[in-house]
Amino acid sequence: MVTRTLAELAAELNGHLLGDGSMVIRDVAGIREALPGDITFIANSRYDAYLDETKASAVICARDTRQTAVPLILVDNPYLAFQQAVRIFRPDRDRPEPGVHPTAVVAEDASLGRDVSIGAWCVIESGARVGDRAVIMAFGYVGPRAELGADTCLYPRVTVREDCVIGARCILHPGVVVGADGFGFALDQGRYHKVPQVGNVVIDDDVEIGANTTIDRATTHSTRIGEGSKIDNLVQIGHNVVIGKHCIIVAQVGISGSTEVADHVTLGGQAGLVGHIRIGKGAMVGAQSGVTKSVPADTVVTGYPAVPHGLWKRLQALLQKLPQMLQRLRDVEERVQKLEHEDAEERVR
Amino acid sequence: MVTRTLAELAAELNGHLLGDGSMVIRDVAGIREALPGDITFIANSRYDAYLDETKASAVICARDTRQTAVPLILVDNPYLAFQQAVRIFRPDRDRPEPGVHPTAVVAEDASLGRDVSIGAWCVIESGARVGDRAVIMAFGYVGPRAELGADTCLYPRVTVREDCVIGARCILHPGVVVGADGFGFALDQGRYHKVPQVGNVVIDDDVEIGANTTIDRATTHSTRIGEGSKIDNLVQIGHNVVIGKHCIIVAQVGISGSTEVADHVTLGGQAGLVGHIRIGKGAMVGAQSGVTKSVPADTVVTGYPAVPHGLWKRLQALLQKLPQMLQRLRDVEERVQKLEHEDAEERVR
Amino acid sequence: MVTRTLAELAAELNGHLLGDGSMVIRDVAGIREALPGDITFIANSRYDAYLDETKASAVICARDTRQTAVPLILVDNPYLAFQQAVRIFRPDRDRPEPGVHPTAVVAEDASLGRDVSIGAWCVIESGARVGDRAVIMAFGYVGPRAELGADTCLYPRVTVREDCVIGARCILHPGVVVGADGFGFALDQGRYHKVPQVGNVVIDDDVEIGANTTIDRATTHSTRIGEGSKIDNLVQIGHNVVIGKHCIIVAQVGISGSTEVADHVTLGGQAGLVGHIRIGKGAMVGAQSGVTKSVPADTVVTGYPAVPHGLWKRLQALLQKLPQMLQRLRDVEERVQKLEHEDAEERVR
Repeated sequence: MVTRTLAELAAELNGHLLGDGSMVIRDVAGIREALPGDITFIANSRYDAYLDETKASAVICARDTRQTAVPLILVDNPYLAFQQAVRIFRPDRDRPEPGVHPTAVVAEDASLGRDVSIGAWCVIESGARVGDRAVIMAFGYVGPRAELGADTCLYPRVTVREDCVIGARCILHPGVVVGADGFGFALDQGRYHKVPQVGNVVIDDDVEIGANTTIDRATTHSTRIGEGSKIDNLVQIGHNVVIGKHCIIVAQVGISGSTEVADHVTLGGQAGLVGHIRIGKGAMVGAQSGVTKSVPADTVVTGYPAVPHGLWKRLQALLQKLPQMLQRLRDVEERVQKLEHEDAEERVR
Repeated sequence: MVTRTLAELAAELNGHLLGDGSMVIRDVAGIREALPGDITFIANSRYDAYLDETKASAVICARDTRQTAVPLILVDNPYLAFQQAVRIFRPDRDRPEPGVHPTAVVAEDASLGRDVSIGAWCVIESGARVGDRAVIMAFGYVGPRAELGADTCLYPRVTVREDCVIGARCILHPGVVVGADGFGFALDQGRYHKVPQVGNVVIDDDVEIGANTTIDRATTHSTRIGEGSKIDNLVQIGHNVVIGKHCIIVAQVGISGSTEVADHVTLGGQAGLVGHIRIGKGAMVGAQSGVTKSVPADTVVTGYPAVPHGLWKRLQALLQKLPQMLQRLRDVEERVQKLEHEDAEERVR
Repeated sequence: MVTRTLAELAAELNGHLLGDGSMVIRDVAGIREALPGDITFIANSRYDAYLDETKASAVICARDTRQTAVPLILVDNPYLAFQQAVRIFRPDRDRPEPGVHPTAVVAEDASLGRDVSIGAWCVIESGARVGDRAVIMAFGYVGPRAELGADTCLYPRVTVREDCVIGARCILHPGVVVGADGFGFALDQGRYHKVPQVGNVVIDDDVEIGANTTIDRATTHSTRIGEGSKIDNLVQIGHNVVIGKHCIIVAQVGISGSTEVADHVTLGGQAGLVGHIRIGKGAMVGAQSGVTKSVPADTVVTGYPAVPHGLWKRLQALLQKLPQMLQRLRDVEERVQKLEHEDAEERVR
């Protein structure tokens, strides 16, 4: 079991300690669940009230946090420092040993790097290439000529179809499907004819893909996911979509064919993007929004159809005022009627 | 083949028979598809018109149903009674025999209860525990130290990752992923750094989870699903979410991290909940709604952002009136202009 | 490597050639990625501007396309002709050879047609029937008494549960689950009791189903998918749903129990349909729409709740006018107040 004094921990996290440095920390925890012996964190000053309630022995906080009864480690980026603390107290204990499980079916002409770990019941097809130290857990499927980079990890039950390419240090969670056919059909005389999807998927380094997410292969050329992008569970990415670097795509997002998402974009959960549009660099799309046209860089859009977030908020506020507007309209109609009536009387006199 | 007379069936279902008790029933069916020899049901008086059309030999109905040509069994809870009827006429014939399939890979230190059934190509990892009479069908994966309660059934292709705990009498459908990593990344200098997800998932007794649904493990501590809750297909449940007892979560719902759902909540299909909120006991969220803040107990909310259902209906009705409101506004503007004009003329005179 | 002269290709595609028939074409590509030697296509005159930019050696276009510098093949249906071109230049090279992989577990009383191909780690249960030339790739699961038609292809990791029936020439992508239990529970004294789902799923010929899509079995009788319908990824189809022929169902759509979708319907991505309604022949539902009541044939509906598309567009336009309406309301109120004031003064005089 790993332990650290608070002073040691503050040094490792490049933090400034407020409190007793000799205190012993034995684990990490969320602020509500933490118990004595745990260190926790607050990444958002909105939750500062928890500082007075937590049972944690210490809290990792932003530099400007006020002093409290509980010892603090003040850092530049509390969530980042917490991440480091988790790695200290909870080293990964389930990383499989290198080796090929005797039940794995590996094609003779597949190429396996040094120290790969291939689990039970895996299938590595002809011409596939697996990089050094890559891990493929149980039921992994790597199709003909597909490639996995070094140190990439496929959790159990990942499917990578033929000719798809995955970079280094990627993490694919259970049930991910990379390279299923894009959804393309030509209509002729009332019947749909399949357009063969002969492209592939290319995923750059350091990408993480959540459970049961699907990324379709391109009709021709490649569907692409840029370096460092993180994709949550149950996301659908259509054929010929291009995702930039360091994007965040939250669960159940759907992106239609040929849409481009530039670098550093965030897509909120369940958002939907139509095909053939472009989301500019640094843009953010609100959860559940429906994006029907291109979004400029550094813009936040919300709603269906998605509009700039400020406009959306104004429209939402006005919507809440509709009952009041209708009443005011009725009132003014009555007042006008009264004026008209008096006017008529005046004329009669 | 199972048969019952209508009199026998009425007795078994604690119902009151209206009609010929000697009639022989041989199967169950939906009211539209039912044929002579079948018994069917109506759970909602909205569908009473079907009573005159159905070809069924008898119908299970609420106690206050009017007499009709077709024989009726009147009960307190028709859907519940129909459920019992299905169990009578269609006993499960595919429950696998106890035993471990020769192709299953079971770790030496895994613990298997009495009369478990483990199917082809299953993987039971080190330290896993499987309760008595549990069924794990083909391609099941039970990770290191994961636990399954007694009589729990995993349909083919279920993934339960390390350290997750599943109670007794649970049913997990194909493609379910329990315990994939939560979606947590710390942003530092334009790159996202993975926050290790070292918690687990704890699922209580009598929970059912639909096909390809994903339930993420907690960052620390546990993502929890309460006793008796029923979750449909393709649902996403984020890290550290806590679901209460006897909830209904319809297909494609998404629940963001750390949100709490109290007991007896119903979430409609495709609804989305932001993180760190609380849905009160007995609340209902409409289909496709986007819930952006906590919901009090026993409240029905709808829309995006979700508001109380009554308010939402009023706003929807007002929206439909917008064309008319605009016209009334134009009219009153004209009338005011006319008054102003006359007023000016008056002054001139 | 396949090559064709442009003249040969024009003849094969029943097209009219504008340009040099001796030019040699070696591959297909999208219009933005195409290079010399490639043929590409434009299916929508909206993209005609690309004709002046593309590096392709030739473009397949509609008959009325204006002449350009790049050679054109003019056809009736460019997308259909492109589909034929893809089949010419990219013949399928990964179709598995007939045969049963030695690791497949096939029940003794399962029936396999001629020239079937059954991959590694497949499970074919008792009484299952697999049609001639059907392909079941790695990890396929065909449950007791399930049937697959001739020439149907199951990509890796498809689950077909007991008694489900799939027609000829169907394509099921990885992670598809056919026949999981419908979501039916009877509430009694605060607990939900499972209603056994004893029906099946029946899928007609020429249906394609996208990755990780789930189609639930009926409570009784059948959930049905009609001939030639195409279903994208991560779609949820509830119990007793009936889908007609030649429908298009885009990714992440959800269809609740017992709803009927007639022939030639298109459902946009992430749309949701409540249960027990009917979508008429040829109707279209916009992306993300929430359909709460039946839709007549040949109608386009949009929004939540979904209304006819024209009405939805008018309401959206009016919503944008709300700030202006509020201002006009304020103005008219002021004018009325002024009139009332003058009126009062008048009376005083």
